[in-house]
Amino acid sequence: MKSLARFEENPLLSPANVLPSREGFEVACVLNPGAFRWRGKTFLVLRVAERPLPIPGRVHAVSRERDQLIVTSFAADDPDLVAEDSRVFIHRGRKYLTTISHLRLAESGDGRHFQVHPAPLPLGGLPGESYGIEDCRVSQIGDEFFLTYSSASPHGVGVALARTKDWVNFSCDGLIFPPENKDCTLFEEKIRNAYYCLHRPVGLNLGGPFIWLASSPDLRHWGNYSCIAATRPGEWDENRVGAGAAPIRTEQGWLVLYHGADRRSRYCLGALLLDIDDPSRVIARSREPFMEPVMPYETSGFFGNVVFSNGHTLEGDRLTLYYGAADEFICGATLSLSDLLETIH
Amino acid sequence: MKSLARFEENPLLSPANVLPSREGFEVACVLNPGAFRWRGKTFLVLRVAERPLPIPGRVHAVSRERDQLIVTSFAADDPDLVAEDSRVFIHRGRKYLTTISHLRLAESGDGRHFQVHPAPLPLGGLPGESYGIEDCRVSQIGDEFFLTYSSASPHGVGVALARTKDWVNFSCDGLIFPPENKDCTLFEEKIRNAYYCLHRPVGLNLGGPFIWLASSPDLRHWGNYSCIAATRPGEWDENRVGAGAAPIRTEQGWLVLYHGADRRSRYCLGALLLDIDDPSRVIARSREPFMEPVMPYETSGFFGNVVFSNGHTLEGDRLTLYYGAADEFICGATLSLSDLLETIH
Repeated sequence: MKSLARFEENPLLSPANVLPSREGFEVACVLNPGAFRWRGKTFLVLRVAERPLPIPGRVHAVSRERDQLIVTSFAADDPDLVAEDSRVFIHRGRKYLTTISHLRLAESGDGRHFQVHPAPLPLGGLPGESYGIEDCRVSQIGDEFFLTYSSASPHGVGVALARTKDWVNFSCDGLIFPPENKDCTLFEEKIRNAYYCLHRPVGLNLGGPFIWLASSPDLRHWGNYSCIAATRPGEWDENRVGAGAAPIRTEQGWLVLYHGADRRSRYCLGALLLDIDDPSRVIARSREPFMEPVMPYETSGFFGNVVFSNGHTLEGDRLTLYYGAADEFICGATLSLSDLLETIH
Repeated sequence: MKSLARFEENPLLSPANVLPSREGFEVACVLNPGAFRWRGKTFLVLRVAERPLPIPGRVHAVSRERDQLIVTSFAADDPDLVAEDSRVFIHRGRKYLTTISHLRLAESGDGRHFQVHPAPLPLGGLPGESYGIEDCRVSQIGDEFFLTYSSASPHGVGVALARTKDWVNFSCDGLIFPPENKDCTLFEEKIRNAYYCLHRPVGLNLGGPFIWLASSPDLRHWGNYSCIAATRPGEWDENRVGAGAAPIRTEQGWLVLYHGADRRSRYCLGALLLDIDDPSRVIARSREPFMEPVMPYETSGFFGNVVFSNGHTLEGDRLTLYYGAADEFICGATLSLSDLLETIH
């Protein structure tokens, strides 16, 4: 897309820019930030994935119990150990994660140079979050900010909701979607007297990782489910889809940025346009992605060939997109909203 | 278990006892009934799976659009046709079902001899139900009956809620859980001012087909999710678990009957005991199943080695269990509640 311009400063943040939350750990990845404007600044809600410092001949798993990180250590040559990929291994039928993610703020005056806060946000202590919290979307409704993020545990990956007005005091509403669910983002205003969100459950024998809509009277309890975007066989989004940050109100309808992956797990970005009064009605959808992984920091990293956005800020027609690249770095790009709307008709 | 007694009349209902809903179709299975007492009679909400009459050399798929059943026909030797099992096949990447289920009432004066109603219940017309509705649980709250059932479509299998006071007029609240979800049953009273239900979402890379709890202010919107029963490696319920009919209030706590399957898909029945004031707290769980498929009508059929219960009626200490056997027949059994409670401590 013509108006898409990556920041020259990319990547904006790398694991080397982020201190681990405690001694004995290192930051493996910093990725998939939520984004918001507040008090004249741009803030990111980083996903920081950390792990115990390596010890030769050992393999570490990490989990959380309340405020404690628990490290479980195995001999690397343990015959009962089966590695799935860089993120997961199995020992005697039980799954373990090699990293655990928390959420951390970073702030910037110009939206390009970010200062990372030293401590994690005080979230992630639910029983359903012992394997960490990930990929936060931030929506502002009135003077309150709402955070929706993936919560992982041995019971699966669901979605939790937390709210804050000052980014110091948070209240958590617990899990609002059970497994398997992620990629949840709230609409920033009521439609016909109900709250709405997009989310990404997974149909198992029928269906798949599709984008669904739900509505709520209070943001904590959800119902009225309908599917609005399935994967498309043979296309760039044939394998999975999931919504990005809060839908953007435009004159043509709600603009939803989403990621799609093909069967090689190459992640690109596309867009949906939903009816302004009935967001279950899809008006248009990108034929081709408007953004693909092409830069070296997007094609190589912890998990290569990924651009994944769950945060943006908007000024007039200019959308600033923050995105995770190769599951390891945080990057930025700008584009024209009207230009994007034209590509999806 | 000593007090468990199968009805001598078993199976109570077979496909031959049920007329198809329209010409050109046959009933393949009648199974997994919800159950309730009303106006001095016992009622079952049957799941009736029907299919187009066979034509040699052809394979049929069936789906529903509003009130119409749509039959799609393929040559049996079509090289693009891949059969998954007796229920599902794939053609050019798209999944089709060989049968479609609807819900149908049957009634009885003695709880053993049932008369099947001639027409389906007027449910199942949602866009998310084009592949049918299945496995209904019936809960009574006040003078209203609530039906929770699995809704299948190419977008996945979720749970829908409908309500009725007279079994003639129904109102449907749409999908209350998105895919993958089934085995949903409502508690028949509020606990600490909230409604509760059990349901069965599926964690994908972490977790699995586990029993979860949720709460609601209005039965239509749900939140506050927590996992209360996972599968147990190496046990009879190692592969999947799911709740049966409405939890039973006892002096020891909420008694929940559930089904568990092992890796050979042998389905047995067990029980959970939940704290009466906080149903997220599990007090006890069956070590061994209290009922296993052993009778010929349970071990052989459309899908053998299955006992699956989602309906029961209660009179004093005597629980009458209605259950699907081998995914083809409907059977009954009685047992003593106090006897069952003793086995799970």
